[in-house]
Amino acid sequence: MNHHTTDVVLVGAGVAGLTCADRLSRQGFDVLVCEARDRVGGRTSSVLAGGEVVDLGGQFVGPGQDRVYALAAELGVEVVPTHTAGDNLVETDAGRLRRFRGTVPSLGPLALLDLAQAQARFERLARRVDPRAPWTSPGAARLDMSTLAGWIRRNLRTRMGRRLFTLASRVLWAADPSELSLLHALFYVRAAGSLGAVMAIEGGAQQDRLVGGAQELAVRLAARLGDRVRLRAAVRAISQDDDGVLVSVDSGVTIRAHHAVVAVPPPLAARIEYSPPLPALRDALTQRLGMGAAIKCMVVYPEPFWRSAGLSGYSLSLGGPLDGFVDTSALTSERGVLAGVVAGATARTFAVRSVDERRTAVLAQLTRLLGPRAAEPIGYADQDWSAEPFSRGAYSALFPPGAWTGFGAALREPVGRVHWAGSEIAICWYGFIEGAIRSGEAVAAKIAGG
Amino acid sequence: MNHHTTDVVLVGAGVAGLTCADRLSRQGFDVLVCEARDRVGGRTSSVLAGGEVVDLGGQFVGPGQDRVYALAAELGVEVVPTHTAGDNLVETDAGRLRRFRGTVPSLGPLALLDLAQAQARFERLARRVDPRAPWTSPGAARLDMSTLAGWIRRNLRTRMGRRLFTLASRVLWAADPSELSLLHALFYVRAAGSLGAVMAIEGGAQQDRLVGGAQELAVRLAARLGDRVRLRAAVRAISQDDDGVLVSVDSGVTIRAHHAVVAVPPPLAARIEYSPPLPALRDALTQRLGMGAAIKCMVVYPEPFWRSAGLSGYSLSLGGPLDGFVDTSALTSERGVLAGVVAGATARTFAVRSVDERRTAVLAQLTRLLGPRAAEPIGYADQDWSAEPFSRGAYSALFPPGAWTGFGAALREPVGRVHWAGSEIAICWYGFIEGAIRSGEAVAAKIAGG
Repeated sequence: MNHHTTDVVLVGAGVAGLTCADRLSRQGFDVLVCEARDRVGGRTSSVLAGGEVVDLGGQFVGPGQDRVYALAAELGVEVVPTHTAGDNLVETDAGRLRRFRGTVPSLGPLALLDLAQAQARFERLARRVDPRAPWTSPGAARLDMSTLAGWIRRNLRTRMGRRLFTLASRVLWAADPSELSLLHALFYVRAAGSLGAVMAIEGGAQQDRLVGGAQELAVRLAARLGDRVRLRAAVRAISQDDDGVLVSVDSGVTIRAHHAVVAVPPPLAARIEYSPPLPALRDALTQRLGMGAAIKCMVVYPEPFWRSAGLSGYSLSLGGPLDGFVDTSALTSERGVLAGVVAGATARTFAVRSVDERRTAVLAQLTRLLGPRAAEPIGYADQDWSAEPFSRGAYSALFPPGAWTGFGAALREPVGRVHWAGSEIAICWYGFIEGAIRSGEAVAAKIAGG
Repeated sequence: MNHHTTDVVLVGAGVAGLTCADRLSRQGFDVLVCEARDRVGGRTSSVLAGGEVVDLGGQFVGPGQDRVYALAAELGVEVVPTHTAGDNLVETDAGRLRRFRGTVPSLGPLALLDLAQAQARFERLARRVDPRAPWTSPGAARLDMSTLAGWIRRNLRTRMGRRLFTLASRVLWAADPSELSLLHALFYVRAAGSLGAVMAIEGGAQQDRLVGGAQELAVRLAARLGDRVRLRAAVRAISQDDDGVLVSVDSGVTIRAHHAVVAVPPPLAARIEYSPPLPALRDALTQRLGMGAAIKCMVVYPEPFWRSAGLSGYSLSLGGPLDGFVDTSALTSERGVLAGVVAGATARTFAVRSVDERRTAVLAQLTRLLGPRAAEPIGYADQDWSAEPFSRGAYSALFPPGAWTGFGAALREPVGRVHWAGSEIAICWYGFIEGAIRSGEAVAAKIAGG
């Protein structure tokens, strides 16, 4: 057995935990970050494929995400724009390809009108939601008794409109809209500005990327913290009394501290053993939140060959397996990099195939959309986040119907000396890297403020 | 450290785990049952109040529940009918009282018609659902994208009809209908016969009770198993390989066996650490199932005084805090016993009050409905199942929208040498004591069959 004493123990070396630890450390607190994996970064993970750094997790940043731009600047991580010049593509389920500009694909005037009206209606509803306390929004009970899928059924009239709105929601939440409370979808969008903004590249949430990969933020924060970050240190139990907390780590290590900050997604936070047990409302909340299912697929080519055909690389596809992909080629390299995602139910069936089969299926799809040169990449990497024992899904935890109105009040409220951090705890930019930073800073301020 | 070896380890000494252990043991298997609490019985718990044995957990049995009648007979536990003679009562939110017979309260002809039509429609929908695989039922995707609350809104036209259907669903599932997938509500009813049957006393799921309390089943099964049941032995980790399983118990004990049977509700099964990690589909399922919230309140009087006023004791109330209560007086005693339940959102606010405040509120309600003699009980006991760290809710785990169709296939499927048991695993009578017995017997047969 091995005993440590510190001021604040952080559970999880993702962006939220490390930001919180860094902020506390710089104010003179002694901290210790326990990370279950053998790496930092949580749901950001940057690896080499075909000679390029590619992001297997979260990677985009955009306007309104002030804290991530500030943190990147502070850490010397450069930000570059995502490539957008050229036409976007959409593939129907019948295998037809259509070019479009902006965020709304044009598959006939009726579907376009249908989608435009639905988006306007969704934006209006979202503006009603108070992201600080969605359960107090006007009509919250009614919004929280419907799924997003039910809303799509009732509010879109064309088959193609429904299919595209469903596809967009899969890309946004990595889940099928039948799993999401309408209130959660509205909250999420409100917490990030608007539906238009979360879907857009230029002027929206996919506008920029971090040079060297999004994991760089965590890597550099961890470097500052040095040996105060412990890898392969899964936290199994947290007990607390009036004097402090006692955190038990897998390896038999125990840590005594004044505060604990649990900076892992709520469904995983539920798997730690708490003593005394958590209040029923908090426990019930964590029983209900499920992680989305996303497989991120990164494909590297000798060059971004689609650009010469007038294509931006940004594509949506009803043919799958990728629901969508986007050109994330580096500015300083001649290579072309596509970042795609397989989401929701498709991710669950795709996940059980071998990496080779997945690669083959993705390349076949890219060939359908971008032509034969797509069949010959120089690098491929993918990651099934649901299979990661210390993520168990991505992008974020999702609220089913009844959860915000029944249990939402317990999401951010600390329990004695145990605080909650992570992208899901943020009031703004829930589910984004920005949200992780904001929640980490907020908890640090709270602890430092006494 | 303390090491044991056995054939089968069972996690949880509720009715499912003990039935499974007993069946295996009688076929010559060596078993060991690890129970986290200091008692057996799981979600059945029988205690003394006012000189009577009262049930703080599940207690009713009825026609179609063949296995529980057989087990009771086998163990020498007597079964007696629930008292039904007299008029039932319903209290409106305006405080009006109405007498009625049967299961459908009469609050005006329009509400009655509305409720009758809705019930008929619900029964028709339920008959479509295949309880073995609800996700394959015709129209499953559509049924699983709606909450029960949304269905009530769309299918009942009177305010009183909606309120009473909502009340009934709170009594049935201990949850607000906004939390439940319509498909789950239909499955649950189908797995128990019909809505009429699950709501009814005579001829339905509340027809009979177990003399000495429902916990007697577990107590007598445990007595047979003797020292093969270990109390205060919370299982924290289960690892498996081709040769067997290794189960780690809180106290430092480890047990090697050929099979493990996890017989706790799915949300709690998720909190055990599995090595190798569980398949993503199973993990994602357990992230989504939340336990209902029920506080069972038992009140004992010198006699069942309501009977002399021509009342059965069975009452529904929109005034609360009890959503409903029923006469569970023993046949062999002169005392009167009422069993009530506070469910869903009300349970969560009621839970934070002191036992004295809860008792006062319940007695005030009973006085409103049954008259001044209700203010003077000789015994009161209640139990908030959400506060129990090894139940974390009651009556059962509930499927939100999207969960059956997305993840249902992982509910009953064993993972290598790890099997799942419990009332939630049963194909018939999900959430009932009967379901627990059936699942325990099914897993025992599977393991014994090789």
